[in-house]
Amino acid sequence: MIEDLEAFSVELMSTTQPIDQIEVGTKQFLWAKMNMPVLQLANDYLKRKHAKKCLSGIRIGVCLHISKETAVLIDAFRSFGMKIDLVAANHLSTKDTIAAYLHSLGINVRGRSFGSEQDYFSDIALLAKSSPEMIVDDGGELHVAYSCTLSDSCFGGTDETTSGTSRLISLAKQRKLRYPVILVNEAKTKHFFDNKYGTGQSSLDGLMRATGLLVAGKVVVVCGYGWVGKGVAERARGMGARVIVTEVDPVSALEAHLDGYEVKKIDEAASEGQIFLTCTGQTDVLTRKHFKRMRDGAILGNCGHFNREVNVNHLKRISQPPNKVNPYMDEYRISGRSIFLLCDGRVVNLVAAEGHSPEIMQLSFANQLLSIHYLASKKNELKDSSQVMSVPRQIDDLVSEFALKAFGLGIDSLNKKQRSYANSFIH
Amino acid sequence: MIEDLEAFSVELMSTTQPIDQIEVGTKQFLWAKMNMPVLQLANDYLKRKHAKKCLSGIRIGVCLHISKETAVLIDAFRSFGMKIDLVAANHLSTKDTIAAYLHSLGINVRGRSFGSEQDYFSDIALLAKSSPEMIVDDGGELHVAYSCTLSDSCFGGTDETTSGTSRLISLAKQRKLRYPVILVNEAKTKHFFDNKYGTGQSSLDGLMRATGLLVAGKVVVVCGYGWVGKGVAERARGMGARVIVTEVDPVSALEAHLDGYEVKKIDEAASEGQIFLTCTGQTDVLTRKHFKRMRDGAILGNCGHFNREVNVNHLKRISQPPNKVNPYMDEYRISGRSIFLLCDGRVVNLVAAEGHSPEIMQLSFANQLLSIHYLASKKNELKDSSQVMSVPRQIDDLVSEFALKAFGLGIDSLNKKQRSYANSFIH
Amino acid sequence: MIEDLEAFSVELMSTTQPIDQIEVGTKQFLWAKMNMPVLQLANDYLKRKHAKKCLSGIRIGVCLHISKETAVLIDAFRSFGMKIDLVAANHLSTKDTIAAYLHSLGINVRGRSFGSEQDYFSDIALLAKSSPEMIVDDGGELHVAYSCTLSDSCFGGTDETTSGTSRLISLAKQRKLRYPVILVNEAKTKHFFDNKYGTGQSSLDGLMRATGLLVAGKVVVVCGYGWVGKGVAERARGMGARVIVTEVDPVSALEAHLDGYEVKKIDEAASEGQIFLTCTGQTDVLTRKHFKRMRDGAILGNCGHFNREVNVNHLKRISQPPNKVNPYMDEYRISGRSIFLLCDGRVVNLVAAEGHSPEIMQLSFANQLLSIHYLASKKNELKDSSQVMSVPRQIDDLVSEFALKAFGLGIDSLNKKQRSYANSFIH
Amino acid sequence: MIEDLEAFSVELMSTTQPIDQIEVGTKQFLWAKMNMPVLQLANDYLKRKHAKKCLSGIRIGVCLHISKETAVLIDAFRSFGMKIDLVAANHLSTKDTIAAYLHSLGINVRGRSFGSEQDYFSDIALLAKSSPEMIVDDGGELHVAYSCTLSDSCFGGTDETTSGTSRLISLAKQRKLRYPVILVNEAKTKHFFDNKYGTGQSSLDGLMRATGLLVAGKVVVVCGYGWVGKGVAERARGMGARVIVTEVDPVSALEAHLDGYEVKKIDEAASEGQIFLTCTGQTDVLTRKHFKRMRDGAILGNCGHFNREVNVNHLKRISQPPNKVNPYMDEYRISGRSIFLLCDGRVVNLVAAEGHSPEIMQLSFANQLLSIHYLASKKNELKDSSQVMSVPRQIDDLVSEFALKAFGLGIDSLNKKQRSYANSFIH
Repeated sequence: MIEDLEAFSVELMSTTQPIDQIEVGTKQFLWAKMNMPVLQLANDYLKRKHAKKCLSGIRIGVCLHISKETAVLIDAFRSFGMKIDLVAANHLSTKDTIAAYLHSLGINVRGRSFGSEQDYFSDIALLAKSSPEMIVDDGGELHVAYSCTLSDSCFGGTDETTSGTSRLISLAKQRKLRYPVILVNEAKTKHFFDNKYGTGQSSLDGLMRATGLLVAGKVVVVCGYGWVGKGVAERARGMGARVIVTEVDPVSALEAHLDGYEVKKIDEAASEGQIFLTCTGQTDVLTRKHFKRMRDGAILGNCGHFNREVNVNHLKRISQPPNKVNPYMDEYRISGRSIFLLCDGRVVNLVAAEGHSPEIMQLSFANQLLSIHYLASKKNELKDSSQVMSVPRQIDDLVSEFALKAFGLGIDSLNKKQRSYANSFIH
Repeated sequence: MIEDLEAFSVELMSTTQPIDQIEVGTKQFLWAKMNMPVLQLANDYLKRKHAKKCLSGIRIGVCLHISKETAVLIDAFRSFGMKIDLVAANHLSTKDTIAAYLHSLGINVRGRSFGSEQDYFSDIALLAKSSPEMIVDDGGELHVAYSCTLSDSCFGGTDETTSGTSRLISLAKQRKLRYPVILVNEAKTKHFFDNKYGTGQSSLDGLMRATGLLVAGKVVVVCGYGWVGKGVAERARGMGARVIVTEVDPVSALEAHLDGYEVKKIDEAASEGQIFLTCTGQTDVLTRKHFKRMRDGAILGNCGHFNREVNVNHLKRISQPPNKVNPYMDEYRISGRSIFLLCDGRVVNLVAAEGHSPEIMQLSFANQLLSIHYLASKKNELKDSSQVMSVPRQIDDLVSEFALKAFGLGIDSLNKKQRSYANSFIH
Repeated sequence: MIEDLEAFSVELMSTTQPIDQIEVGTKQFLWAKMNMPVLQLANDYLKRKHAKKCLSGIRIGVCLHISKETAVLIDAFRSFGMKIDLVAANHLSTKDTIAAYLHSLGINVRGRSFGSEQDYFSDIALLAKSSPEMIVDDGGELHVAYSCTLSDSCFGGTDETTSGTSRLISLAKQRKLRYPVILVNEAKTKHFFDNKYGTGQSSLDGLMRATGLLVAGKVVVVCGYGWVGKGVAERARGMGARVIVTEVDPVSALEAHLDGYEVKKIDEAASEGQIFLTCTGQTDVLTRKHFKRMRDGAILGNCGHFNREVNVNHLKRISQPPNKVNPYMDEYRISGRSIFLLCDGRVVNLVAAEGHSPEIMQLSFANQLLSIHYLASKKNELKDSSQVMSVPRQIDDLVSEFALKAFGLGIDSLNKKQRSYANSFIH
Repeated sequence: MIEDLEAFSVELMSTTQPIDQIEVGTKQFLWAKMNMPVLQLANDYLKRKHAKKCLSGIRIGVCLHISKETAVLIDAFRSFGMKIDLVAANHLSTKDTIAAYLHSLGINVRGRSFGSEQDYFSDIALLAKSSPEMIVDDGGELHVAYSCTLSDSCFGGTDETTSGTSRLISLAKQRKLRYPVILVNEAKTKHFFDNKYGTGQSSLDGLMRATGLLVAGKVVVVCGYGWVGKGVAERARGMGARVIVTEVDPVSALEAHLDGYEVKKIDEAASEGQIFLTCTGQTDVLTRKHFKRMRDGAILGNCGHFNREVNVNHLKRISQPPNKVNPYMDEYRISGRSIFLLCDGRVVNLVAAEGHSPEIMQLSFANQLLSIHYLASKKNELKDSSQVMSVPRQIDDLVSEFALKAFGLGIDSLNKKQRSYANSFIH
């Protein structure tokens, strides 16, 4: 969203002419591309491997956030001759300037910022029914929609997220998956990085953009201490907050404790927190009973993929009609106190900020690109496999190698003596 | 600026009607006011002291950033019957919605976002010539302008910043100051807090809004390790950056070293940094010779009051005409490399983000409000004093007390035995 | 070691009587026991399960560091009627006062502080040949020694460490393991905690005790960014150091980079570091070529289990005979420069400090105790199993539960709706 | 203390010969000297200034901790021909090996480890009466004692600490000071560094040596947030603790709050803390009413100069006779709970650890050395001055310069344009 705001500010500055969305989108795309050298290295690698031969002409259905980083991945697919249908993984996160830019390249794009939830589902359904040969997804929605069609066009796909992973595993268990899917989230170069470092920074960024408040000295309750929660807690502390962690898993709770955070039940934390950030991937983390205990001025933000973590219906039911403080924040009055909900409970880093930065997305998208090539190149071998798969080890390793190069990091390698030491029981 | 962008996004959402700047400005003002309880406590205190009696009717010239927080201070002056002329301390930081809101209250406001530098100086000159009785300033420009008039209308004033402090001291030394000025920046409740915690957070916020890049893993060069530099370095590290500090003062350099930062000459750091943040209050910190050594992709941001720290003229002279990446960032091409300048060298936290948060500004502005009252109540006693003064101790203490109350902090007090122990040489 | 130094200081204070090692050992044991409530909860649990019935009379060979924490585990074994032979896992780490205390309880103890390496091997060999029925090991040495005997007395065992794990896996692969071994290090409640938090703190503690130097501002090179390296790097930074990480694994290197550390090849880091801490579990991490590049005054410490990480032979060969600065540090002169080696390359946290604190050891030892009970109770079922096993899930969960209780942490549990949400593909 | 323990361990290792205290002391002295290059640079500077001419033959009474670092300062005094009488500033902190070493050089040393408090006062009294010409003090005790004599031998002195500073100011106010005293603590190169970085590290070091406990996850209450408290809080957090700060000063309380610590009244914190570290310079910070509220197992340590912060008499009065857990920790039983007092309430970093590291002490001692030379060289000018003085600016600057050199830090200098900018009101 910020980008189309920026577009407007460009307009503002140029005062009279209508904003050229394509021009702005082009600049955003170029800025992202410059900051995604890992994806470029993956691209170069595939060129050396003559990837065009096996990818050219394939119709690929892509359901991703329509962001400048996605545009760089789409550009890579396009450079190998793929035919792309793109649908927004979340309408609120769609950048219209990027949509306009991609459209100008001849990509078929569905999605506009502030589209309705109904648009979202119908756009995905349309794409699912259009007989894609491959599917790239973020959250599993397109795979689920395709599973409800009778088509057998699709021979392989990928998914980007933790949420998608668990949904695809369920789908496979129930024998509703009809082609192999690589769970990109399982790549070490993906989930170690985007969940922790990507969401960590961008969630704080979204919080600051939406509220303009000081983080230092605030009591921030982080619900969930998985990779996302760890990243969010660390960055909140890095901005000077005092962090309380809530968990359902004992081992994660112990980790949070030894990392120096206070660990409490959510029922207790509810009355202490000034800012609540949900990072669980679950539903109903903050509900009616918590809202009733909260301090006047409490701020609620969701860092998880789906807008189920804060029960917004509960909030609406016990309060007066909300008052919009700014585009990213609504005030709910409950018996004399105010609770401020960010982004209507949608994922705060994508709606109020720009989601993962290009440096993070390049790791995921290099895995995506190489995985799509892998599936296409093994099309025949895998045709009877209807399972979820990990990212092949060699792809994860390639992405690591490209990342080291892009970030300029030097590492050592084991010599012969060391390799044999690692495998020996005589020390 | 973000607020009027937000205004536009409000417009976007309401699709057809023209944006109601006053309505948006009102909401912004109310959000700020809710988050500035310290200023409210100062206000209540002055009411109990019948401040209206001595403040009512005084014409006060105010040169501050036209922000939602300033609106809360203006509202307080207004509640005591003062007659306010407000001029922008920096046109780029002016929020048009706030200007509209204040105008709707009958305040005389000069300043609009993206005004020219010429507007800025002429607006200040006009206000200086309008015979204000008191002056509230941010950076000393209005005091300097007034000193060039022949008027003797003004009987007291204040200034907000480090930059203003040193300029006013020069002015006083040269016997050009004709009334007492309280240097609000000298209050412990001001400079310990806004420079470190306020600028620390908002500079990182501005950096992230302007670039959308990941901070973790980046080499961030912080020039200057005074209060601002300390805050910026700490928050950059808190977001995962690797920080290099440059200094001219040996004691500050030693502090930075023992705080775990790398300390280097700027000539060496120039070729290592990926992001440069100037925090010196000086001029010409980054110049031609540094630009020539910088890495491809280097990003330059200024966290100091004046746009003198990065020598933009040097940058322009050695590069091709800049390419606007987005409203906050220009690309300069220098022999095959790109350098990205944020906000045209203007203060990044105010231009690309929202400046200090209301929780920080309330400390400064409570000092401002109480200092203005102090000067007005001592008008006769001080009339022959033409000096810069510290904030009176009792005001600093009051602000502390209000802040403890607002933040909900409990502190202890020394008992009789402890007070005597503190003053004894027999232990 | 520090404990027997303390013993001497007790002697000092009491001036004339010979120190009562048993009395000092008793106090140390009681202090540890008070700080190991998790082990106590495991003990209580086993009592409720009538564990004595299946454990009583079993001859158990234990090879662990002879520390106050081990004494608490031994005390638990003893309370269930087991017959214990204890041998030191490392002579340098043996506390004579604890040995004396355990001996006074009738435990058969082999090991004394500053014993020779030859004593170490012969003591282990003796124990291996004594037909133990169960084996508890730390580093796999006793298991390896037993595998060389012809005995079939042993029906089950455990091991504590990462080093032991990889050696036992090799042993099993080569079909030299004749009974099931539970790899306690694999428990989440073990390796997430002792490697990171335990070794992290105690290695810094050992460094400070051995050198007495300031950590703040020092360049500390951490070799290896596994759990141990992560903990050591974090604590070093927490004390104000500037940390450089070296790695062989790309993913770990990227993590270190995004955690804000500098990542370099060891060849480069060698000339920059002031303190080197090896955390790799490997051999020959610092060798001749590195010593030659090091700065005057460089300090070398090993945080890994075996004294192979710093190649001490290389160091000796290129330098003059070492000069003992204090009991924990030797100075090696190499062409005009001095390099200081801590603890002769042995693990610095156990030799110069006290190893893991009791709060950490209680997690490992609760897993040990419950695993030994598990193996004994399943003796017949498992008798033909000659494999390495993970700690059974229910044991790991029990230890978590006890730890939450002991640390006073509250966690939530998923409700029915949430459990079903976690397993559903329809969101 | 640890050093003479180490001495004993050396003895242990050499098994039969009596320990050579002088040899051990010599090694300790050499290790300290190697790590105090700043003092060496000051020494070299004075040599170039022919300091021997004005210092030779002067009888100087020195009351400092008898540590390896002090030995390096004494060695410097001696190299300029001064005649030194040294008395321990605290008997518990005296290293007998250093005393032995200095004695072997012909220095007159009074003090031995574990001496009584009575010895301490009588030793100081003796020195005060011995007609010293100059006095170097730590805590003001020797100055106070000399002020009670009738002698007029002394023509100048210095003091090292915050405590000494306030006592000397009282003394001067009451006109009992008969010669100029330079307050070394006031040097920027002293109090910015030793209080924060020195005491910060060494207090945590002392805590870990004395208790052997894990710091991560513990609730540590830091009483006082001056320089010492700031350092202790930061290092405790750096080891993973959750820190609560108590204060009497509102501005410091606000700083602690914005630094992310919880701020509370001591009455509330008393029942939450697991470890209490007093850093106030005050008396009676923790008293009967706090002990009664503390959790079972609470640990109390004092980081201030005098053993008045924890009221040990109160503790003794409400508990059973203490039980010595180890030489640094006593257990007090109060109605079923245990409270553990470290070092009998004496300063924990000097008694249980080694005090400031040599890198920190070199800054203080370089100021000491240069100040003594300054006073001696200005003997006639200052003879009628009976006041406390700050360290002359040029000395502070010299020490900075030497420190930058010793730590290898590069800083920049202002050019002409920048110097004039700093002094101008026209920007």
